[in-house]
Formats: sequence, structure tokens, C-alpha cells
Amino acid sequence: MDLGSVVGSISGIFLIIAAIFIAGDIHNFWNIPGLMIVLGGTVSTTLLTFQFKDVVTAFRAAYFAFTVDKKDPNSMVATMIKLSEISRRQGILGLSNIKTKSRFLKKACALIADGSEEETIRSALRTEIESLKMRHFIVQDIFRKMGMYSPAFGMLGTLIGLIQMLSKLQDPSQIGPSMAIAILTTFYGSLLSTLFCLPIAGKLKARTVYEVINLEIVFEGAIGILDNNNPIIVYERLSSFIPAAKRRSLSSMRTK
Amino acid sequence: MDLGSVVGSISGIFLIIAAIFIAGDIHNFWNIPGLMIVLGGTVSTTLLTFQFKDVVTAFRAAYFAFTVDKKDPNSMVATMIKLSEISRRQGILGLSNIKTKSRFLKKACALIADGSEEETIRSALRTEIESLKMRHFIVQDIFRKMGMYSPAFGMLGTLIGLIQMLSKLQDPSQIGPSMAIAILTTFYGSLLSTLFCLPIAGKLKARTVYEVINLEIVFEGAIGILDNNNPIIVYERLSSFIPAAKRRSLSSMRTK
Amino acid sequence: MDLGSVVGSISGIFLIIAAIFIAGDIHNFWNIPGLMIVLGGTVSTTLLTFQFKDVVTAFRAAYFAFTVDKKDPNSMVATMIKLSEISRRQGILGLSNIKTKSRFLKKACALIADGSEEETIRSALRTEIESLKMRHFIVQDIFRKMGMYSPAFGMLGTLIGLIQMLSKLQDPSQIGPSMAIAILTTFYGSLLSTLFCLPIAGKLKARTVYEVINLEIVFEGAIGILDNNNPIIVYERLSSFIPAAKRRSLSSMRTK
Amino acid sequence: MDLGSVVGSISGIFLIIAAIFIAGDIHNFWNIPGLMIVLGGTVSTTLLTFQFKDVVTAFRAAYFAFTVDKKDPNSMVATMIKLSEISRRQGILGLSNIKTKSRFLKKACALIADGSEEETIRSALRTEIESLKMRHFIVQDIFRKMGMYSPAFGMLGTLIGLIQMLSKLQDPSQIGPSMAIAILTTFYGSLLSTLFCLPIAGKLKARTVYEVINLEIVFEGAIGILDNNNPIIVYERLSSFIPAAKRRSLSSMRTK
Amino acid sequence: MDLGSVVGSISGIFLIIAAIFIAGDIHNFWNIPGLMIVLGGTVSTTLLTFQFKDVVTAFRAAYFAFTVDKKDPNSMVATMIKLSEISRRQGILGLSNIKTKSRFLKKACALIADGSEEETIRSALRTEIESLKMRHFIVQDIFRKMGMYSPAFGMLGTLIGLIQMLSKLQDPSQIGPSMAIAILTTFYGSLLSTLFCLPIAGKLKARTVYEVINLEIVFEGAIGILDNNNPIIVYERLSSFIPAAKRRSLSSMRTK
Repeated sequence: MDLGSVVGSISGIFLIIAAIFIAGDIHNFWNIPGLMIVLGGTVSTTLLTFQFKDVVTAFRAAYFAFTVDKKDPNSMVATMIKLSEISRRQGILGLSNIKTKSRFLKKACALIADGSEEETIRSALRTEIESLKMRHFIVQDIFRKMGMYSPAFGMLGTLIGLIQMLSKLQDPSQIGPSMAIAILTTFYGSLLSTLFCLPIAGKLKARTVYEVINLEIVFEGAIGILDNNNPIIVYERLSSFIPAAKRRSLSSMRTK
Repeated sequence: MDLGSVVGSISGIFLIIAAIFIAGDIHNFWNIPGLMIVLGGTVSTTLLTFQFKDVVTAFRAAYFAFTVDKKDPNSMVATMIKLSEISRRQGILGLSNIKTKSRFLKKACALIADGSEEETIRSALRTEIESLKMRHFIVQDIFRKMGMYSPAFGMLGTLIGLIQMLSKLQDPSQIGPSMAIAILTTFYGSLLSTLFCLPIAGKLKARTVYEVINLEIVFEGAIGILDNNNPIIVYERLSSFIPAAKRRSLSSMRTK
Repeated sequence: MDLGSVVGSISGIFLIIAAIFIAGDIHNFWNIPGLMIVLGGTVSTTLLTFQFKDVVTAFRAAYFAFTVDKKDPNSMVATMIKLSEISRRQGILGLSNIKTKSRFLKKACALIADGSEEETIRSALRTEIESLKMRHFIVQDIFRKMGMYSPAFGMLGTLIGLIQMLSKLQDPSQIGPSMAIAILTTFYGSLLSTLFCLPIAGKLKARTVYEVINLEIVFEGAIGILDNNNPIIVYERLSSFIPAAKRRSLSSMRTK
Repeated sequence: MDLGSVVGSISGIFLIIAAIFIAGDIHNFWNIPGLMIVLGGTVSTTLLTFQFKDVVTAFRAAYFAFTVDKKDPNSMVATMIKLSEISRRQGILGLSNIKTKSRFLKKACALIADGSEEETIRSALRTEIESLKMRHFIVQDIFRKMGMYSPAFGMLGTLIGLIQMLSKLQDPSQIGPSMAIAILTTFYGSLLSTLFCLPIAGKLKARTVYEVINLEIVFEGAIGILDNNNPIIVYERLSSFIPAAKRRSLSSMRTK
Repeated sequence: MDLGSVVGSISGIFLIIAAIFIAGDIHNFWNIPGLMIVLGGTVSTTLLTFQFKDVVTAFRAAYFAFTVDKKDPNSMVATMIKLSEISRRQGILGLSNIKTKSRFLKKACALIADGSEEETIRSALRTEIESLKMRHFIVQDIFRKMGMYSPAFGMLGTLIGLIQMLSKLQDPSQIGPSMAIAILTTFYGSLLSTLFCLPIAGKLKARTVYEVINLEIVFEGAIGILDNNNPIIVYERLSSFIPAAKRRSLSSMRTK
């Protein structure tokens, strides 16, 4: 996680909490039944909508999105060019014992080294990319739905509070505090949605975009190695994925 | 249905109901005309929008989505590899008497065993997948529209209550309870939408995604059997549908 | 229109109206200027947005959607198989004097009987399907826009009422009834949208889906007749459009 | 502009204005600072979002959409068939001096008469259609964004009014009129959006659909003339763009 | 930036500010904790959602969108025609030392001059365009998300203010000013979203459309130079991107 985001977000959240609690009593913002309605309702409808396993996967994905750094597409391009040169010198069998943490790259190398037809390689890698997109979409959807359920339960809690208050409207001096408690669940629901669910859903979506670019670089690079395997042409094709201003030159990638 | 979801959702819903009713009288939340407006209105506009048969189908689909387990794509891949090996040993006629509950797989086998052209098989199976997606979309749409109609009728009920109350605004002590009853329909409508319609629509959508993956595995597998029928290549193509972390190896599928 | 829908919707609407009017005076819900704002505003902005002819077409389409039964895709498949057999026995000229109410089927038969090239037939029929989808989309859009304009005019009416009431806020006993009248237009607008515009738009959308399936069956059937004209293959291709559970067997279609 | 729309929309708008002003004083609905906030805000954010030239183009397009009649696709089909016959009798050079107001048709004729390759013609005309769609989309977007900005500034105006009123809440008899003025901007914003921006955006969208159909007829007709140039086949292809009920027969087009 | 937009937007914003502050005290609209909640919350959730680098890029892109003029597509067409003539006279090597600020055009020229295959050129340039679209989409998304977060934090601030006020509802004379302060954050949030975030997001989106047109002109022009390199045909293809009314003639481009 880059330092700027850490400093920015922590100081920002601190500012908000300070602004909230300096002016009032903290215990005005604390209400157990209200929390139960919002949290319990959001969690249980999420479990109703999705499978338990998928929800666990989603939270693990959120954790990784905030802790693991995204890979630089330049280094991915450099890797593909190195592979192109290896397969030129050693033949495609040279790709069979590449060491990499990326399962996708490993699969691409294995398929090429096995001498599979281009059609099979294309189809297998394309399916892999599409499946990853779809799984990531479900993961994002879990947080997006949570960001939709939590304000809904906040409003349900406020309606419950209002109905109880209005049903026994005898002592007018009680109206204020009762209203405060009723509104509290709307506050919980909005806070949960705005500060937690929606930013995570957005982060996961942005992450997917960058991850798919890296996969596309591997895909295009693998096809390039199969086609005519000229490192210069492979570089021309792959560097197009990177904004011109951040693109590294071919020579800097080769000496690396 | 996986245990985690059952425990999670039941305890969650219990928590909410407890939070609602501990603090107030239950009879404050019970109003027959209000229920009639929300339930009657939602049901009748749903019947106006869709055909009776489709609505029945939708409720049956919802029941199955919560009771029948989704199939593991790994076992579907294993099935296709077994079929690939059968057709290698026995010829494509060996596929003609496969026993399976999946009508789609049965149709794919029958088409291959009949010696149909690849173009015909592709077109028939693709149409089948697209038709299923479209039918599932209508089923999801029924619950999504119900989740839209029920808050609308909740608001209509509240407007009716407000207009009646405001028209005879003489005794101010009556305002509170009248307001409580008026707001009650908004509560009913939101509850029906948030706790029932939207989670079911979401569940059905997520289910469709998983079901379509299984159909795509059969589709790609059938094409693979037609093309060159090498179990290793079939495995490479089909395993791409499964996330790398959950993928079973080819050997474990064969010994099975 | 199927009986279930008729009974369901009529009894449902009756329930709602009963719930509305039992508890209060009917004349509280009757206000001519309010009705004028909502109805007049919705109609005039709809006429501004669309052409007069299109609006008339939309209302006629809505009438047919509720009165004419949708055609069973099974019988459409049976028709195409019968045509396949006719063209086998009599040659494609046998298709030139087919009697059918469907203009699309008639055009398909005429094109085949004229000995047009497959490319021309494909292009003409595909254009026909896309044009129908687009025209139906405009028709649905008219009701969707009406369902958006009517609550907007309801709110405008309420704002007008509120501004008039607040401008001369002297006699507090007048607030209640004035508010009631102001809120009435919001009620009219929501009622018009929820009970009338949105269900019709939804109905038309669902109808289009079923109608397009029938056209696709004719399209695929015509291509099948051109290609190799084997009723068994035509059946395999076309039956994929129908859910497996409702599919009729080829033999039952032939004896028909 | 067809008469029905004129009569319908004018009488409708008259009804609304009557309903608004009969019941109350006109000067209650007149507030200069409020108008400044809503109109000034909407115009300035629109100018911030789009380029001055594009906004001018949008207003000119809106003017034309309401004054110039849309062309009948039947007459466009008839034109294309006439061109097909001319090029049969006189050769493709006969298309070089066609007189027409449509620049698109002129370009299509010029390209054919120049003896360009089909690929070039296809690509040039397709680009032209896509560019027109995109430019029309921007024009619609300007009115759609205005229809979004104007209620937002209406609400901002109301918030300003409420804050000023609440800050000096001493004389309760002043609340009513102050509230009325505060709400007025919400009324202005909604009125501007509902009666002006959204119908124009809708009109322009519907117009684009019809205009694109005419361009598609020219496109398909030009390809037909290039391909084999049989007026009967050209008619079969082009008439598919027109709903069967409104389609004119080939003979009626030829004698024309 | 064109003068019309500058004058229009500055005078518009001045009008709004005048309308706001003439009628009331400025200090009623100034509240530090409220500003902290809205600004701090919006900034910190934006930093949580996106990477620090991307946010910086977005603000730089917004600055350029308002200061740098968009390029005229006519001059881009003229450039491509000049290149077409150069490569006719001097051979494709003549394109190797073209001087231009556009990195995309330089890459296209370099690829052609290197004698790359059409397939490689197509794929590299297409990837470049798609990558640019995707990066621009992320940049727009940052302002769109900010325009969504800021009203959400405005509402959260108002809820905090309301809860504090209602909790100690003893002195009724305090209600007004407390409410005013509570509503203030909603005002801040809406203002930030409507006057700042949404117009910038819209501007960037419109900019992308125009920029992509220029890239498409280079793309089609490069393909045209490769294919048969006839300036007249290149002009016919490229001029289709420009609306007929603004199109310059081929001769005026050549003499330039």
C-alpha cells in the first residue's frame, strides 16, 4: 500500500471522528439495538444473497487489495521480453521451467512449451482472463450489495423508532431524545456504507482493471512469442498497454 | 444450502426481530389495511406485469436456489474428461448412452453421438445457453420488480394515511398514533423489499453465473471432444474456468 | 390473457381500493386542479417528447399486450418443421403459398421460394428482427418516460400547494387540510406511475422477449431449411430455444 | 412538427399553468434571487462541462427537432430503388450528379460513382454513421446534464433559504413566507428539468433513432447497388427497416 | 479554453454567489467542523478507493482539460494527408523523422517506417487507443466517485448535527440555529458535488470523446497509408469523422 494513501486516509478519518465527537457526548452516538439492526441486518441479508464461501473470499480479497502492492506493468513487459529472448536462444522448451509466482504466466509458459496449437493457447488463456473478471465482479458485487443493504436497514431502524415514538406521543419532552435514537440507525447505515462498503468495492474494481492489464500483457506476449518471436515487435505490441509517459525503453528492459 | 449461510442468516434475522420487538409493543407494528395495500398492491402489479406462469416459475426457482446445492465445476470438468476418454476408446457412439441428470449434457452427448456437424452442435448448444440466461433473467426480473413495487406501495399507503390524518386535523393528541399507522406501510414495503425480494433476486443472479459456468464447461468440452479429443488439451481448456487455487489436477480427475 | 392474471390483478386492485376508501371519506381524495396538473402535465410532456403517432401506437400495443395471447414457441417450432418437410417433398417453391398470419414468416417463405441467396435472406430477416426490437423499445420507452414524468408532476403540484399554503400562514387550523390537498398530487403521480405506467412498460418488455424468441425460431429455421434441410437437425437447432422441461418431442410435432 | 403534438402540448401546458395560477397569487411564484440561482447555476455548470460551441449546437439541434419534420423511411427506400435503376440503365457514373439535400446520400453516390472499392465505401459510410450517433449523443447529453443540474441548484437554493431562515428564528410568524421562498427554488429547478430539459433530451434521442434508420437504409442500399444491383433484392433488404404495416409495395415505389 | 466558456462560467458563478450572500450574513454559511467532515471525508474515502498516484493524475488531467485547447480534427486529417503524400514521394522511410508532439502519431509513423506488418500495427495502435480510453475512464471515475461521496458526507454531517441537537432538546429557542448548522454540511456536500466534481467529470468525459476521434483519425489514416496510399481515398475515409458542415475540402488541406 503506497504511503500517500496511508497517511491521507488515516489523517482524513481522524479529522472526521474528531469533528464528530468534539462537539457532543459520545454516548449520544452509541445504541446497541440500533447497531444490531444495521449490522445484523446487513450481514444476514448478505449471507442470504451470497454463499458463505464467497463472502469469506470477498473479505480476503479486500484485505489483499489494501496490503499487497499492485505489480508494475513495465516489469511485466520486461518479463515477457526476457521470455521471448529465452525462447529464441533455447527454443520453446526453455520456457518449461520458468520460476514465477503468477499462475497465469506459468500456465502460459507451460502451454507454449508443450507445443500446443495457437488456437488452444488463445482459448485457454482468454477463458482464464474472463473467469477472473467474472469472479472479481462477484467479489465487488458483495461489497456493493452490502453498501446498498446497510442504509436500507438504517432506514428500517429509523422507521421502527419513529413508529414506537409516535404510538405513545404523550410527553412532548421525550420527543427529542427518542427522535435522536431513531435517527441514529440511519447514521450507522450511511456511515457503514460510505466509509467502508463503497470504498472497498471501488478499490476492488480499480484493482481488477490493473490486474487485467497485466494478464493482457502476458496474453499478447505469449501470442507474440508464438507468432514470430521478435523481441522488438513484442515490445511494440506490449508497450502500448502502458501510458506513453511511464513507458520504459526496450534497451532499459533488456539490460535489466 | 451450506451450513454457514443457514446459521448466519437465521441468527441474523432473529437478532433484527429481537431488536424490533423488545423495545416496543408488537401490536404497534400490526395493521391489516396497511398490509393489504403493500402485499395486495405488490402481488397484483406483479401479476399485471408478468404472466401467471412466469411468476409461479420464479417462486419455484427461488425455492430451488435456496435448497439445491450448486454443482462443483471441478466435477463437471472431471465428467467431461471421462467422456473424452470414453469417446477415445469406444468411438463417439459410446457417448450415446450416458446417464446424467443434466439435460444439457445429455443433449450435447446425443448431438456428438449422432455425428452432427460441429457447426450444428455449436449453434444448438449456444442457443440453449443463451435461452437459459434469458429465462433466468426474467425470473430475476420478477423479484427485482417486486422489490421496486413494494416500497412504492408502502409510500402510497403512507400518503393515504397522511391525507386522511391531515384532512381532519382537529385533535392534536391524535396526530402521533395516526402518523405511526401511516408510516407503518412504508415500513412494511421496505421490509418486504430489503429482507425478501432483493436478496432472492441477488441469489438468483449469483446462481445463474455459476450455472452458466457449468454449461460453458460442457460446451467447451464438447467442442474439444469433436476437435481432436486429447484429454490433456481438454483439461487445459476446461480448467481455465476454475480459479487456480481451487483447480484439481488432471491425474486426480482421471483416477476418480 | 391468462385467467390467473385476470383474477389475480382484479382482486388485488379491488383490495387496494377497499383499503384506501374504507377508512376515509372519498372526497378527501378528489381534487380537480391536482388531477389536471398530474394528468395534463404527464400527457403534454409525453407529447412533447414523442410524436403523436408513436404515442397512439404505444397505447395500441399496450392494449394488444393485455388481450392477445402470446404464441407458444413449441407450435412455432412445429410450423418450421412442417415447412422443412414441405420444401423437401415439393421443393422450395412449395413454400411460396404458405398461409400464415405472421408477416415475418411469410417474408421468410417468400425469400426462400424466390431462390434468394442465403446472405440476402440472413440480412433481410436480421434487419427485420432488429427493427422490431428497436420499435418495441420506443414503445416501452413511452410508458417508462410517462412513469417518470407523472411522479415529477405530482411533486411539482405538491410544491405549488406548499408555496401557496406557506405564503398565507396565518390561520394554523387551515394547515392540515391545505397540506392534505398539496400532498394529494404526489399521491396521484405515484399511483399513476406504480399502478399503470410501470406495469405496462414491464409487460411490453416481457412480451418483446417472447416475441423475439418466436422470430429467432423462424430465422434459425429458415437458415436450416436453406442449409441442408434435415427436419431432425432443424428440430435439434430450434428446440434449444425452449426450456427443456416444456420441449415437445420431434415425433409429437410431426404427427400434429 | 405534426399538428397532434402541437395541439396536445400547448393545451396541456395551458392546463398546468391555469391549475397553478387560478388558486393563488402569481407574485408568490416570482423570486428574482431564486431564479438567478437556478438559471445561472444551470447555465454556468453546463458551460463548465461542455464547450460553448457544443452548447450552441445543442440548442440549434433542439430547435430543428421541433420544427423540421422527420423523413419518411418509405421515401428513402423509394429513393434508393430509383438510384438502383438509374445505375442499371446508365452505369454507376449516372449516380455522380444526383440532386439531394442529404449530404450522406450525396457522399454515398459520389463514392460509388468514383468506382471506390466496397471496403472503402463500407468503412467511410460506417464511420459517418457512428460519428453522427456520437455527436447526437453529446447533444442529448447536454440536455440530460442540464436536467440533472437544474434540480440540484433548486435544492441548493432551498438549502440557502432554510439556513438563512433558521439562523434568525425569532419571529414565528415569519416562518411561513420564508419557507415559501426557500421552497420556490426547488420548484423552479424541477419545473425547468421536467417541462424543458428532459422532454428535449428525450425528443432528440427519439429523433436520432429515426435518423439513423434513414442512414442505415442508404448504407444497405449502397451496398446492394454495389453487390448485384437487383432492385427487387434491394427492396427486400431495405423494406425490412420499415414496420410491415406501414411498408409500401415495390410497384408503388417504382411508379412514383 | 474558449472565451465563451470563460465569460459564461465566471459570470454565472458570480451571479450564484451574489444571490447567496446578498440576502444573508456570510458567517451563517461558515462552519469549520462541517467543512472538515465534508472535505476530509470526501478526500479520505477517495484516497481509500484509489491510489494516491491516480488521484494526482486525475487532478492534473482536470487542469489540462480546462487550460489546453482540444485539437481540431480537420488539422489532424490534414496532417494524415500530408503524411500520405510524403510517403508516396519519399517512400515509407520518409515517415521516420516526422516532428510532432503527439506520441501516438509518432508511434504510428515509426511502426510504418520500420516496415512492420499491418497486423502488428493494427494491434499495437488499437491497444494504445483502448488503454487510453481505460485510463481516462479511471480519471473520470475519480471525480464521479468524489461527486457521490461529498453529498453522502454532507448528509452524515447533518445527521450528526441533528442527533446532537435532538439529544438535548430543552431550550426551543436553540432549535433554529442548531438546525441551520446541521443543514450546512448538506449544503457544503451538494455544492462541492454540483459545482466542482460533476462538471469536471463531465468535462473529462467529453474531452475523451474528442481525443479518441483524433486517435481514430490517425489509426484509420495509418491503415490507409499502408493499404494503397491514395490521398483521395485517405481523405474520403478520414473526413467521415468530421460533421459534414465543418468538413474542409481536400484541396484546402493540400494547399495548406
